[in-house]
Amino acid sequence: MHIGLVGLGRMGNNMRARLRNAGIEVTGYDANPAVSDVADLGALAAALPEGKKLVWVMVPHGKITDDVITDLAGVLSEGDLVIDGGNSKWLDDTVHAEQLGAKGIRYMDAGVSGGVWGKDNGYGLMVGGAPEDVEFAMPVFDALRPEGPREEGFSHAGPVGAGHYAKMVHNGIEYAIMQAYGEGYELLEAKDIIKDVPAVFAGWQRGTVVRSWLLDLMVLALNEDPKLDAIEGYVEDSGEGRWTVEEAIEHAVPMPTISASIFARFVSRQGSASPTMKAVAALRNQFGGHAVKKA
Amino acid sequence: MHIGLVGLGRMGNNMRARLRNAGIEVTGYDANPAVSDVADLGALAAALPEGKKLVWVMVPHGKITDDVITDLAGVLSEGDLVIDGGNSKWLDDTVHAEQLGAKGIRYMDAGVSGGVWGKDNGYGLMVGGAPEDVEFAMPVFDALRPEGPREEGFSHAGPVGAGHYAKMVHNGIEYAIMQAYGEGYELLEAKDIIKDVPAVFAGWQRGTVVRSWLLDLMVLALNEDPKLDAIEGYVEDSGEGRWTVEEAIEHAVPMPTISASIFARFVSRQGSASPTMKAVAALRNQFGGHAVKKA
Amino acid sequence: MHIGLVGLGRMGNNMRARLRNAGIEVTGYDANPAVSDVADLGALAAALPEGKKLVWVMVPHGKITDDVITDLAGVLSEGDLVIDGGNSKWLDDTVHAEQLGAKGIRYMDAGVSGGVWGKDNGYGLMVGGAPEDVEFAMPVFDALRPEGPREEGFSHAGPVGAGHYAKMVHNGIEYAIMQAYGEGYELLEAKDIIKDVPAVFAGWQRGTVVRSWLLDLMVLALNEDPKLDAIEGYVEDSGEGRWTVEEAIEHAVPMPTISASIFARFVSRQGSASPTMKAVAALRNQFGGHAVKKA
Amino acid sequence: MHIGLVGLGRMGNNMRARLRNAGIEVTGYDANPAVSDVADLGALAAALPEGKKLVWVMVPHGKITDDVITDLAGVLSEGDLVIDGGNSKWLDDTVHAEQLGAKGIRYMDAGVSGGVWGKDNGYGLMVGGAPEDVEFAMPVFDALRPEGPREEGFSHAGPVGAGHYAKMVHNGIEYAIMQAYGEGYELLEAKDIIKDVPAVFAGWQRGTVVRSWLLDLMVLALNEDPKLDAIEGYVEDSGEGRWTVEEAIEHAVPMPTISASIFARFVSRQGSASPTMKAVAALRNQFGGHAVKKA
Repeated sequence: MHIGLVGLGRMGNNMRARLRNAGIEVTGYDANPAVSDVADLGALAAALPEGKKLVWVMVPHGKITDDVITDLAGVLSEGDLVIDGGNSKWLDDTVHAEQLGAKGIRYMDAGVSGGVWGKDNGYGLMVGGAPEDVEFAMPVFDALRPEGPREEGFSHAGPVGAGHYAKMVHNGIEYAIMQAYGEGYELLEAKDIIKDVPAVFAGWQRGTVVRSWLLDLMVLALNEDPKLDAIEGYVEDSGEGRWTVEEAIEHAVPMPTISASIFARFVSRQGSASPTMKAVAALRNQFGGHAVKKA
Repeated sequence: MHIGLVGLGRMGNNMRARLRNAGIEVTGYDANPAVSDVADLGALAAALPEGKKLVWVMVPHGKITDDVITDLAGVLSEGDLVIDGGNSKWLDDTVHAEQLGAKGIRYMDAGVSGGVWGKDNGYGLMVGGAPEDVEFAMPVFDALRPEGPREEGFSHAGPVGAGHYAKMVHNGIEYAIMQAYGEGYELLEAKDIIKDVPAVFAGWQRGTVVRSWLLDLMVLALNEDPKLDAIEGYVEDSGEGRWTVEEAIEHAVPMPTISASIFARFVSRQGSASPTMKAVAALRNQFGGHAVKKA
Repeated sequence: MHIGLVGLGRMGNNMRARLRNAGIEVTGYDANPAVSDVADLGALAAALPEGKKLVWVMVPHGKITDDVITDLAGVLSEGDLVIDGGNSKWLDDTVHAEQLGAKGIRYMDAGVSGGVWGKDNGYGLMVGGAPEDVEFAMPVFDALRPEGPREEGFSHAGPVGAGHYAKMVHNGIEYAIMQAYGEGYELLEAKDIIKDVPAVFAGWQRGTVVRSWLLDLMVLALNEDPKLDAIEGYVEDSGEGRWTVEEAIEHAVPMPTISASIFARFVSRQGSASPTMKAVAALRNQFGGHAVKKA
Repeated sequence: MHIGLVGLGRMGNNMRARLRNAGIEVTGYDANPAVSDVADLGALAAALPEGKKLVWVMVPHGKITDDVITDLAGVLSEGDLVIDGGNSKWLDDTVHAEQLGAKGIRYMDAGVSGGVWGKDNGYGLMVGGAPEDVEFAMPVFDALRPEGPREEGFSHAGPVGAGHYAKMVHNGIEYAIMQAYGEGYELLEAKDIIKDVPAVFAGWQRGTVVRSWLLDLMVLALNEDPKLDAIEGYVEDSGEGRWTVEEAIEHAVPMPTISASIFARFVSRQGSASPTMKAVAALRNQFGGHAVKKA
């Protein structure tokens, strides 16, 4: 099989390597000519064998993905297949599918999990699209997903959009699990009788109920920096966690832990500039004469 | 009526003034001789008229209150009445009642709300104790509580401990209400189409569902400092909010908003030193290669 | 002054009465001919005096408001003014303003708080629109708002949309305050030493930090039904609370208490059918052999 | 090695089997003579070889553990070692250590994770005690813990109490992770474009960031009952989750996700009888005339 891959950043580059290792021929395009296999998307399309051409898009979601989709609509032909493997919002998928569909080009979305470890471990995949497109692209999915039974590292979640939707929920869960380990870490650190927090985390890796891959990563992080002294408590968020909560609100799904984990990230970026806590401090001062900390 | 008052700090001093204005004679004692009416608790007890002597204790909870109760047990007599109006935990009330009760001295607890405004507005009172003691002390409660029907500014919540317990719950609710206004304030501040946040808060004071005394105070605070620029988002907590959540846990009462408001205060004091968020940042770095902010 | 009023349901009918009491002439239209003053919107427009005609819209948000706006665009003229006093989303205001603006018709939005009590107490008003329109409609606002200084029951929050936005935030805060009182109520009910929960709430009405109009209503409710025995713990939500959280997410505003109060309402409608808790029960059963409750 | 084991319920019985498989001789005692190896604790002590006798206690925490400790103090001798492997609160460990220590008997606590799977997979162990006692008991720990490097399934967390404390925090984290999967499950179930929720969960088992043992169990549960139709959303909690939040409050550790997961369990047991939501419903009715659901 020979496919096109648009976007050769950290993720795209790793995926190209994993695909090639698995015997998939890959022609890659990136705006950065230093890493690109071809000069432009036209050349990418031209490089692919006749028949149903498959182009995997792996660029930042939003405008950049929109632009790539628009450009691909110009260089691909009826019956070809585009798969967006980036972090697009599921609602974008409908737009992209219609845009390409107007030219008879097929579209699928693929949520991809695994981060920098995916190159070696394989990527967990959740895809949305028509069954015949899923079947056609299966050699690519099989190359990207981890070893083991297909259904343990790959799911066909539903029609177009369902893959990114499932990935979005995955990330919402991920946020809450990370926050849960963080809270446990903080309490263990705060307790005088706990003498070796990294050892406790390490000892949870086998046999316990809370063992997980994120726990293994926590152990790695604590091995490098047992008190996490070198790191500030400052955490960005990507779109998926926010969308998860928005969808929960839309569907009347109670989501206390996932929302709490996102709010914790918001707060982590405010520090003492939090307007909410300024207001609370001002109120305490008003009714009780409690001193405020001057900015 | 002539009572003793132990503790002449900000609260005690204001209460002495309000009691005297209402025609209650007050002999005050404080460890600070500059503000004290008498030299020691023995002199305080001696200054009170024969019969059932009433001493109101208004000192910081914990060891200082414990010591005052112990000392009063030495200078008062059978049938006298001690009222703890400080912020003691309701569990301390049982201890203090037993300690005094061993000498036949009566005990009541009074939760007092109103802060620095109480001197002029009156204090909301929640008391715990035996009905005959409540009746005996009613002239004092009537002098301290706000104008208007007694049952709107005073409650006899139950036996010893119930007054402080009701006040504890009051403070838990207070935390959540403050946090709610803070969250609304922050969102209004974040929104470009809202041109005058202080005007919006001011306009909520009459006719709306959210009108309250805390809202009035928020308006005062925004009058002084419309962007709260001079205040850091740093908020202490007193014991009552924590005890409220502990009690909720003990009695299997779900308490999401009150607990959230307390956790927000904890976080406000950590800033970028939050161990939880350090751990979350470390995890993101481990799986995704996301940059961390170096401490 | 003589204005048109579209929508004579519970809110519109009360507002018509309050406006007329204040000397404002009102021609009302409602789809229900039994309560309507005129046969249709054309007749409503015709009934208003020449010059800048003012029509206040008070119908359910969404499609019904959309339709009324469309119809008013057909019967009003350049320079007339439409005010949407319903619970529309602030984003709808922009659409409606553009739609009417295409014909030179002016538009404002007004968030209205006060519920069934507004007829007698007056309504808290938050408005969005151009200063000249606000000035023109001020007699109407003055008639609707409560007695007292205008700025305590009325605010001009910003341009079109700002009124509904401020009302949306108001409702978000309202949700959290209600939840906070509820949590406090539940804990007091759960505690054996609290002998009279309604008395505690009643006694918080004067002098305390938590006194508010919602507290007064809680006292009324407990007067009618001291244990709330006749009411199920089932609570609907209107759109505003959800939009508040969505906006918080959009603007990275941490909103733990307001979101918790909405999630609590979602849960209240699920009972034992909660999919989240089914999943948790299933997990406990899987790892610990803990019994599940069979559906 | 030959040890005593007190308590042969589900956990104790499995542990006896695992220990014997590993070549540890075990004399078990249980109040139920049908499963007991000896008639009483005296016989148990007598059955153990001379020298430092080791007795592992595996009975419900609280009064039953207290009684067993008291009885062991009567039948063991100076230098013997008792290990409490049950779910005792860490504060009980101090009491038990002092009680046994008065007779020169040594004491350790062991938090044990793994549930019904531990017999085959091994148990994750977190222990508290003196280094020489840990070393003495290591053959037992090695027999109980999972295959693999010792430090990945065993930790010596600190002095007496630290083992149960680490296990308590483990369980708090466990609660939040379970809740996070539950929330994600509910949202996926609520979304029309997700056609196969069990497949999505199954596909997360390899390569994804959220892969974990609890996820594997979720897949097992969904295999058995894809819609969880047979299960009610009703979840008990054991003490550890509550203690975790109490400790968080005590140490000013923000714990939004772990507390939310416990509150969700509390709510799951209330259904429409929730006093909080009754109060919220009553308030809505008071201010807005919103209908309540009659009990």
